[in-house]
Amino acid sequence: MSGAGAPGGRLGPGALGALFLVGAVGGLIGDMCHVVSGTTSYLEDPLPYVWRSQLWFPLMVGGGTAALGWIRVRFGPVADDEPVGGETLRQAVLMVAAVLGLYALTALVRGEPDEVGIVLVYAVAALICGAFARRPVDLACGLIAAAFGVTTEIVLAAADVFEYARDVPQVAGVAAWLPGLYLAYGVVAARLGMIAARFG
Amino acid sequence: MSGAGAPGGRLGPGALGALFLVGAVGGLIGDMCHVVSGTTSYLEDPLPYVWRSQLWFPLMVGGGTAALGWIRVRFGPVADDEPVGGETLRQAVLMVAAVLGLYALTALVRGEPDEVGIVLVYAVAALICGAFARRPVDLACGLIAAAFGVTTEIVLAAADVFEYARDVPQVAGVAAWLPGLYLAYGVVAARLGMIAARFG
Amino acid sequence: MSGAGAPGGRLGPGALGALFLVGAVGGLIGDMCHVVSGTTSYLEDPLPYVWRSQLWFPLMVGGGTAALGWIRVRFGPVADDEPVGGETLRQAVLMVAAVLGLYALTALVRGEPDEVGIVLVYAVAALICGAFARRPVDLACGLIAAAFGVTTEIVLAAADVFEYARDVPQVAGVAAWLPGLYLAYGVVAARLGMIAARFG
Repeated sequence: MSGAGAPGGRLGPGALGALFLVGAVGGLIGDMCHVVSGTTSYLEDPLPYVWRSQLWFPLMVGGGTAALGWIRVRFGPVADDEPVGGETLRQAVLMVAAVLGLYALTALVRGEPDEVGIVLVYAVAALICGAFARRPVDLACGLIAAAFGVTTEIVLAAADVFEYARDVPQVAGVAAWLPGLYLAYGVVAARLGMIAARFG
Repeated sequence: MSGAGAPGGRLGPGALGALFLVGAVGGLIGDMCHVVSGTTSYLEDPLPYVWRSQLWFPLMVGGGTAALGWIRVRFGPVADDEPVGGETLRQAVLMVAAVLGLYALTALVRGEPDEVGIVLVYAVAALICGAFARRPVDLACGLIAAAFGVTTEIVLAAADVFEYARDVPQVAGVAAWLPGLYLAYGVVAARLGMIAARFG
Repeated sequence: MSGAGAPGGRLGPGALGALFLVGAVGGLIGDMCHVVSGTTSYLEDPLPYVWRSQLWFPLMVGGGTAALGWIRVRFGPVADDEPVGGETLRQAVLMVAAVLGLYALTALVRGEPDEVGIVLVYAVAALICGAFARRPVDLACGLIAAAFGVTTEIVLAAADVFEYARDVPQVAGVAAWLPGLYLAYGVVAARLGMIAARFG
């Protein structure tokens, strides 16, 4: 009944801050996997490093997570079958763990035959989308994340801000499995937005 | 209420064609993983290649998928708790992604210690069977797939039509993890048959 | 209605024996993965080997599994929503397969960059806990398993009974991912205890 989660609802500052934090910390953990495995390398470091990442990276992922959650709550319908109570925390843990596992998997497959890594990453991404998306709007958020995220990385790679290792299969300068990672991330960010809406 | 999905029902040409197509394309994707990783090699190529596979391979997997679906619908009971509506597409995506992921995993474990790869593959196969099989007849379809699939590959390997790499742990000339892959595939083919039955 | 599964219930000898057996066999399979991958090595072998393990190892895991099941049934509430009938076997298969898969994964990640393996193992451990824990007491059993298991291994590693390979990321002489493995194991042992309670 709360306006926070109703159709056309808006997430408050606390909810947006929580989404930003989850996205930023998750982004740092995932990016660490990419950097230590040599999957990606920063070529310019105008900003300080946080852990293994240039400061702009966690800000981008955190901001993207908050934005996707806001979009989902603002434009999407609220399901009557949303999980309640402790169930929300369980869902959040499962979703965040799934995306972090997929992130680490994209680092693990470096050195494997290109096609094997690509099939494995897209298969797990499809499992995450299939398991956690509840409505078409959740998948739409995944597509938005893939479009914006991949485009941003293509631009930054073209500008020599960072690069993918030469042995990582690439399209337009970014990893061929990248859309799958962003798709799963976007679906989970949307669902985290719905959970955050319950808490304000 | 439709006769298509009732006990003793039969799948129509459209449903069988859809199952064939899913199996053939899925087989091509999985076989590509095996060929590029060197897990398997074709020794004879009397037929044209489709992607990385000799033409008979996708025909065999496609035909097997349609046959398993037909068997499941023809001889198995129809559960009252079958997923309905959008749930069927979600289930189909999850199941196909799970089997393709397992297929890619069997390629990924080449080079790992034999026992590690075998335990991992059978564990994931058991997860797929446990997650998607709904009735004993679904598991029976998995066993049928394992028996026919593994026997066929043993015969073809013995006839030097193709071979598994020497560093892949083998039983009778085929990979030791092969029964697990076919078991999971057969369970999923059976369940895809039940989903196809809803559409004719 | 049976006293076996009621709050403050107790597992009978048959149930405890079954839990011991599942734990001992599972422990042997997992430890085989660690030994053949070189993740761990026994430095002393005062007892006979069973498969790849010193006899004390399967006894410890089997005993721990029975103890965790007993603790869960003795002190935890019985959920009204426990799975019934065939559902229990399905749950048991899923849970045992998940933990064995995670065990094999900890062997697979040897040779990968430290952080990648650690993130992947903890992500899968969190998925297992999130998927199978039903109540806080299940997670408490996971924490008990992690505390006792990790402490025991630290003591045994310090006493040069066995060791982790030097290229495995370590804390206090044991693998950095070890708490995640024990946590998932403990949650599953607790749930297996609840299932065993139904059968006496």
